[in-house]
Amino acid sequence: MAGSPFDWIDEQARLRAQAGLVRTLRPRPAESHLLDLAGNDYLGLTRHPEVTAAAAAAAHRWGAGATGSRLVTGTTELHAELERDLADFCGFEAALVLSSGYAANLAAVTALAPHGSLIVSDAGNHASLIDGCRLARGTTQVVPHADPAAVRKALGTHEGPAVVVSDSVFSVDGDATPLSELAAVCREAGAGLLVDDAHGLGVLGDGGRGAPHAAGLAGSADTVVTVTLSKSLGSQGGAVLGPAKVIAHLVNAARTLIFDTGLAPAAAGSALAALRLLRREPERAARARAVATKLHELLTEEGLSAVRPDAAVVSVRAPSPEAAVRWAADCRREGLAVGCFRPPSVPDGVSRLRLTARADLSDAQVAEAVATISRTAP
Amino acid sequence: MAGSPFDWIDEQARLRAQAGLVRTLRPRPAESHLLDLAGNDYLGLTRHPEVTAAAAAAAHRWGAGATGSRLVTGTTELHAELERDLADFCGFEAALVLSSGYAANLAAVTALAPHGSLIVSDAGNHASLIDGCRLARGTTQVVPHADPAAVRKALGTHEGPAVVVSDSVFSVDGDATPLSELAAVCREAGAGLLVDDAHGLGVLGDGGRGAPHAAGLAGSADTVVTVTLSKSLGSQGGAVLGPAKVIAHLVNAARTLIFDTGLAPAAAGSALAALRLLRREPERAARARAVATKLHELLTEEGLSAVRPDAAVVSVRAPSPEAAVRWAADCRREGLAVGCFRPPSVPDGVSRLRLTARADLSDAQVAEAVATISRTAP
Repeated sequence: MAGSPFDWIDEQARLRAQAGLVRTLRPRPAESHLLDLAGNDYLGLTRHPEVTAAAAAAAHRWGAGATGSRLVTGTTELHAELERDLADFCGFEAALVLSSGYAANLAAVTALAPHGSLIVSDAGNHASLIDGCRLARGTTQVVPHADPAAVRKALGTHEGPAVVVSDSVFSVDGDATPLSELAAVCREAGAGLLVDDAHGLGVLGDGGRGAPHAAGLAGSADTVVTVTLSKSLGSQGGAVLGPAKVIAHLVNAARTLIFDTGLAPAAAGSALAALRLLRREPERAARARAVATKLHELLTEEGLSAVRPDAAVVSVRAPSPEAAVRWAADCRREGLAVGCFRPPSVPDGVSRLRLTARADLSDAQVAEAVATISRTAP
Repeated sequence: MAGSPFDWIDEQARLRAQAGLVRTLRPRPAESHLLDLAGNDYLGLTRHPEVTAAAAAAAHRWGAGATGSRLVTGTTELHAELERDLADFCGFEAALVLSSGYAANLAAVTALAPHGSLIVSDAGNHASLIDGCRLARGTTQVVPHADPAAVRKALGTHEGPAVVVSDSVFSVDGDATPLSELAAVCREAGAGLLVDDAHGLGVLGDGGRGAPHAAGLAGSADTVVTVTLSKSLGSQGGAVLGPAKVIAHLVNAARTLIFDTGLAPAAAGSALAALRLLRREPERAARARAVATKLHELLTEEGLSAVRPDAAVVSVRAPSPEAAVRWAADCRREGLAVGCFRPPSVPDGVSRLRLTARADLSDAQVAEAVATISRTAP
């Protein structure tokens, strides 16, 4: 046969280029003059000296890797300590740390949706929850975004175990789901609730304890929460929090726990240090929220179409994918890094700039960022 | 409703307990008196001072986390350097680093098996390859283990893009697939070949360049390879290696790349340091193989049923799951840590002890390990 078996890729690449949707990796230097409103380091902890020192100390003490599956050699006392502290902080009985938030979501959805069960999934859910639904043995019903009435209706169609799956704060627009209502609907129907609090932990709730804690769901027997260690906690990894029996079930059933190498000690150590810092400085959570509110207020004053933030993500609509890419590039040229979300990674096909409100941004930096965004607006 | 929505878990837990198949996490201390033949640190690098120092230095220089998706803020110059060095070492045009080997396999399988394509998957493949097949849009046909003739037959049934997916070395028994034959079958049919070299990198091939390199497949336009950074390289993470156009395609299409936080700098830094160490000390690869061969030879002399190792994993059959668990526990009591694989994490339902041959084990340690295993045998 002529050519390579991967030649079909060329046509996809051509179509992508034609549509202006080619993505490339852009390596960044260790020190940059850019003002960063693109990363998810909501509390400004990833470069905090206590956090980086904890990463370094853990590597020295425990080694650079976990050496095996958490079930073989990959669970250190450091992992156990992080799990206890995470569970305690968020108010759940137990926690299980995995190598990424993606892996945590795959683990939780697949383990909680056995054959014959129903998964009710919000249309705006993160890719990892969607992939979890696709891997699970249960049947998935996708419901309109942030719509408890639709969830109630979906649950009404099913007999047997059911679990409702939703982000607490949606990554793209930074809007929150009505968590208390959702929990009430679940309780009424006897369904479990699985909440991905990736963008809530460290930002929402008392001292950053997260959206489920704020909604009074901490420690509930019918709620399971996933979090990431790579956003507010400035590190890498993910975790599942919930009743001890659910966590024990995951240890026995979740393939992304059983067949993956444990989280590197450096990541576990830095996440633990960040968590302790947050306990000591709970005002960081409130500051991240205040920065987001200020960003939204100033952007709106400038006449831009920004979504009112429920946490630390502020989304600004762009007229087209090309305009969004140009806008982000213009911001970068003027010293500001912003996220640029466009198809196919936005569920609604709407392109936008995505700004993250870091707790360590000063008021002057917020004003400067808004001035740059406004000046470069299409 | 009475009870919790997760009460169905109780029955599963009861059945698991009845079958003697309950798994629990066992946190290990930083220093242990146990002789470790359970971890996957094949080259003994995870605690090498150069490797842990590189992890620490990367955390200090780049921060504890990557702060975002590799497409937003999560690609540092360190990630790019690691990718260049990995690709160069293994002889491929380009590489893409992900947060785990699991994520790398999900990325590669899903991106290379579009709608309408055929995936031919070895029955003994790793869980992450299987999950990749389940997430991919293509249709999967599972073929008998390590059987190129069966692969040829499966490929003959299909028109259009096809990819053959296989581990190079299988995790459970440590046996290798006949890679050259498999590649010939793929070429003949115009199919792509995707090889998971998790257990080959650092152990097989010239200076540990891996099984595809040893089979003359490095740099081939129809071969894509996944590796892990968490075994021979003593760190965390995974990577996909292949033609530059395939890697560019993954950047645009692989959900576990696009929607996951980038690998933590400490893990990237330690993997890079381990790779450089391996370049400088290529004899580590040969030593891991020699230790495995010796282990097998001594175990066989003791009358135990061990599988002849093709890389660094040596598997010893146990009569039952209960006997395997007891055997592993008896070894541990006598100072030896071994892996214990049993249903459901073994494809054939056969329980076994799983030993890993580390390059840094002395001949005396190998003899001691075999004596312990033999003495405690059921």
